[in-house]
Amino acid sequence: MRGFFVGRFQPFHLGHRTFVEDIAADVDEIVIGIGSAQTSHTADNPFTAGERISMIHRSVTGLATTTFVVPIEDLHRNSVWVSHVTATVPPFDVAYSNNPLVRRLFEEAGFEVRSVELYQREAYSGTEVRRRMLAGEPWRHLVPDPVATVVDETNGVERLERVSDQFDE
Amino acid sequence: MRGFFVGRFQPFHLGHRTFVEDIAADVDEIVIGIGSAQTSHTADNPFTAGERISMIHRSVTGLATTTFVVPIEDLHRNSVWVSHVTATVPPFDVAYSNNPLVRRLFEEAGFEVRSVELYQREAYSGTEVRRRMLAGEPWRHLVPDPVATVVDETNGVERLERVSDQFDE
Amino acid sequence: MRGFFVGRFQPFHLGHRTFVEDIAADVDEIVIGIGSAQTSHTADNPFTAGERISMIHRSVTGLATTTFVVPIEDLHRNSVWVSHVTATVPPFDVAYSNNPLVRRLFEEAGFEVRSVELYQREAYSGTEVRRRMLAGEPWRHLVPDPVATVVDETNGVERLERVSDQFDE
Amino acid sequence: MRGFFVGRFQPFHLGHRTFVEDIAADVDEIVIGIGSAQTSHTADNPFTAGERISMIHRSVTGLATTTFVVPIEDLHRNSVWVSHVTATVPPFDVAYSNNPLVRRLFEEAGFEVRSVELYQREAYSGTEVRRRMLAGEPWRHLVPDPVATVVDETNGVERLERVSDQFDE
Amino acid sequence: MRGFFVGRFQPFHLGHRTFVEDIAADVDEIVIGIGSAQTSHTADNPFTAGERISMIHRSVTGLATTTFVVPIEDLHRNSVWVSHVTATVPPFDVAYSNNPLVRRLFEEAGFEVRSVELYQREAYSGTEVRRRMLAGEPWRHLVPDPVATVVDETNGVERLERVSDQFDE
Amino acid sequence: MRGFFVGRFQPFHLGHRTFVEDIAADVDEIVIGIGSAQTSHTADNPFTAGERISMIHRSVTGLATTTFVVPIEDLHRNSVWVSHVTATVPPFDVAYSNNPLVRRLFEEAGFEVRSVELYQREAYSGTEVRRRMLAGEPWRHLVPDPVATVVDETNGVERLERVSDQFDE
Repeated sequence: MRGFFVGRFQPFHLGHRTFVEDIAADVDEIVIGIGSAQTSHTADNPFTAGERISMIHRSVTGLATTTFVVPIEDLHRNSVWVSHVTATVPPFDVAYSNNPLVRRLFEEAGFEVRSVELYQREAYSGTEVRRRMLAGEPWRHLVPDPVATVVDETNGVERLERVSDQFDE
Repeated sequence: MRGFFVGRFQPFHLGHRTFVEDIAADVDEIVIGIGSAQTSHTADNPFTAGERISMIHRSVTGLATTTFVVPIEDLHRNSVWVSHVTATVPPFDVAYSNNPLVRRLFEEAGFEVRSVELYQREAYSGTEVRRRMLAGEPWRHLVPDPVATVVDETNGVERLERVSDQFDE
Repeated sequence: MRGFFVGRFQPFHLGHRTFVEDIAADVDEIVIGIGSAQTSHTADNPFTAGERISMIHRSVTGLATTTFVVPIEDLHRNSVWVSHVTATVPPFDVAYSNNPLVRRLFEEAGFEVRSVELYQREAYSGTEVRRRMLAGEPWRHLVPDPVATVVDETNGVERLERVSDQFDE
Repeated sequence: MRGFFVGRFQPFHLGHRTFVEDIAADVDEIVIGIGSAQTSHTADNPFTAGERISMIHRSVTGLATTTFVVPIEDLHRNSVWVSHVTATVPPFDVAYSNNPLVRRLFEEAGFEVRSVELYQREAYSGTEVRRRMLAGEPWRHLVPDPVATVVDETNGVERLERVSDQFDE
Repeated sequence: MRGFFVGRFQPFHLGHRTFVEDIAADVDEIVIGIGSAQTSHTADNPFTAGERISMIHRSVTGLATTTFVVPIEDLHRNSVWVSHVTATVPPFDVAYSNNPLVRRLFEEAGFEVRSVELYQREAYSGTEVRRRMLAGEPWRHLVPDPVATVVDETNGVERLERVSDQFDE
Repeated sequence: MRGFFVGRFQPFHLGHRTFVEDIAADVDEIVIGIGSAQTSHTADNPFTAGERISMIHRSVTGLATTTFVVPIEDLHRNSVWVSHVTATVPPFDVAYSNNPLVRRLFEEAGFEVRSVELYQREAYSGTEVRRRMLAGEPWRHLVPDPVATVVDETNGVERLERVSDQFDE
């Protein structure tokens, strides 16, 4: 059986990693979809799809389960999103998500949707990691080590600071 | 003479219905354009174009005036919007709207634009109907009966609740 | 029961009209989708969506069956086309088409698809009508009378000649 | 040597004009890119690309330096923005900007980026000019005379008022 | 009075240059629109918008008439093309073109359209210039000298050869 | 060192497989980009991105080299293609391709590009495989076994026949 899990992963953090491990206990193969793949260099979406593939690939290599990591561009049309996903990634049997919109779209399309117990939801969120990066607070303990490496390689914190800087021309 | 009236109709409510009736007194045929046709499953735009066609079609069948109901996708370019509309719908002689942007765009393009006396503007707005749906307050008296039927058939209130749920991944 | 029939209708001709009549014998309501709605002023697609709505609306008003006429823009992604259609038009139970691609896409999406006996297929095709318009040969007997009227109102033959004229800058 | 300077210029004001003069002291030719070229008739972006070309062209004709004024449409993908710019405008050697995102994107692409001393930054901003237009306060002293002329020719203040008017359908 | 002239200019050749000179005799200012601005590196469209701006700018600097050179991206919708053009370039009074589609679109939009006597049409066409480049035949006498310079600076002939090479993966 | 190889893979065949093996001898990791990812259900591009991921993933699992398989959507702008690719996939040091356009675009962007000795080029091409599928001739010996399995699972030959069927409405 194959499971599907989608997120923006800005960046991929330990909450995501735990989520993937929980799914791995359920299924034979996991497809991880990187949402809003085309967006980068913004305050909410600092990292490119390629950088996010690197983060996730290095963070899940330890897993026994085969993992596909696939960027998915936005079409900005919720009504065709599920078709877009199923055309872009290998076939899957069940979608895992706690995101209400994602769950709704898959359910309306007739998919089985499962949720996963969230691990320290407040600490482990992309919003919190980015907030800490901008505030100069510790953030490395919230992400897998390889993610911190990718962030460093891309000068990710500096990029985030720069693209978050409001400018009034 | 043919009149044009455009809205997002999320959902079509009694204010819209009254507006259409007032236009019907003026013209022989009415073209109703469904704006932002491609948008659905969001807090501000819960319903698909197809669902909105159903709502409007069933709500105006009683009218003596011939009515065309035509979805219009956004091009996200105000400067070509009037051309886009006139290419997408049958020809019309006068545009009806109280929306300042719509009025402005038609006026700059040389169209005659008329406004209509608003019927209980504060009660009858899409924003208010959606707010009531989310708050669990009565909303059915604000829409034509067939609209309530379409909302029920699509589990529209549940959908609205789900897609309005903020999620912080 | 509601049936769906899609075409480009460049222009709507008697073959289409017969097709609609045959569907009308089967179902309670018909949704006619106007494909490639955004395309006009080309040799293969001379007419706008609005002009095609006028053609079809005037040609099917005699039918007892309720008919919805809905323009559908291309997304240039076959894999999401069925979702795009079902979001854009009112719900339907069966798709009617003799177009192999359309049939395939609906079948892969799990829809019932029916075909219709073609009426003098070679004479009644959009390609043949446009060829005759360009060659100055008779074409009016191949389309419903109201279609000829719309073509005349838009100087459609002259437009077709102009946009078909190859130009090497 | 050729320099590049990009802005939205909604509208082009004396701060922009001073910026261009400062660049002119550095380089032989200036390419002025008009960003978000496709956007107009909104509260933040009232003027079309064509109107902004007129504003800038008339405001820089006095300069000895050859100036190219080129509209640049958004692709809504920061990661390809620099390539998009370099394909759309004549080649340049150095990019001038105080906008942190623009600077970052050019730097990641290996371009030399220079900043310019800002001239009375708070007074001379597009946001402030538009605020004054809407509030009925004086704004003409903040823009070059030819810009005021273009604003008047397009009834720009009235347009801004109209498109800024919130409407709740 | 201001005149508008649009072409793809792949590349700008002496036929175009003569056309511009003829228009210059008629009007006070000329707006030259570079069509299909987003297309480059193909057999029919080898040059970028920026390269085409350079070609045209250097070829018309001798003219007394003020000239605006503005890239125009395709929207792939003929029905909104005129609106797109008029929003992208400064206002103009008359459109010059021998292209039947361009003439038709401007005429349907109510513009005055003028044609120009063609100068040795067969020799001076972009198709012929590109054919000669690929065939290794002389082409420099067909373009203004500054265009040959731009072609050389961009290794344009080699690029054209490369992008014209059919590849069957 | 990481190498990049891009193709449409309609379908992935033994020529591609040999190409990947040759690259694997050169580099530590391979990124395989699936071009025209958004296109499917056409005569030239029958398979979805997801199906092509399955084909490639199963065909390269035997390789010692780590392999990333990443779909890349067309932006229909050659000038930004390299930036789009580098933002979508993990970073790479050298691009492998025999496609002249791909080579040219990478070279203009300053990348090292290498070619690979082609293995029986005429037999092993996507065009030839699709021609054989349509003609009912043997094709399985031209593709890795897992590709034949994916084609069978998706009724790929039947789909290809259907979408290749010309239809004149």
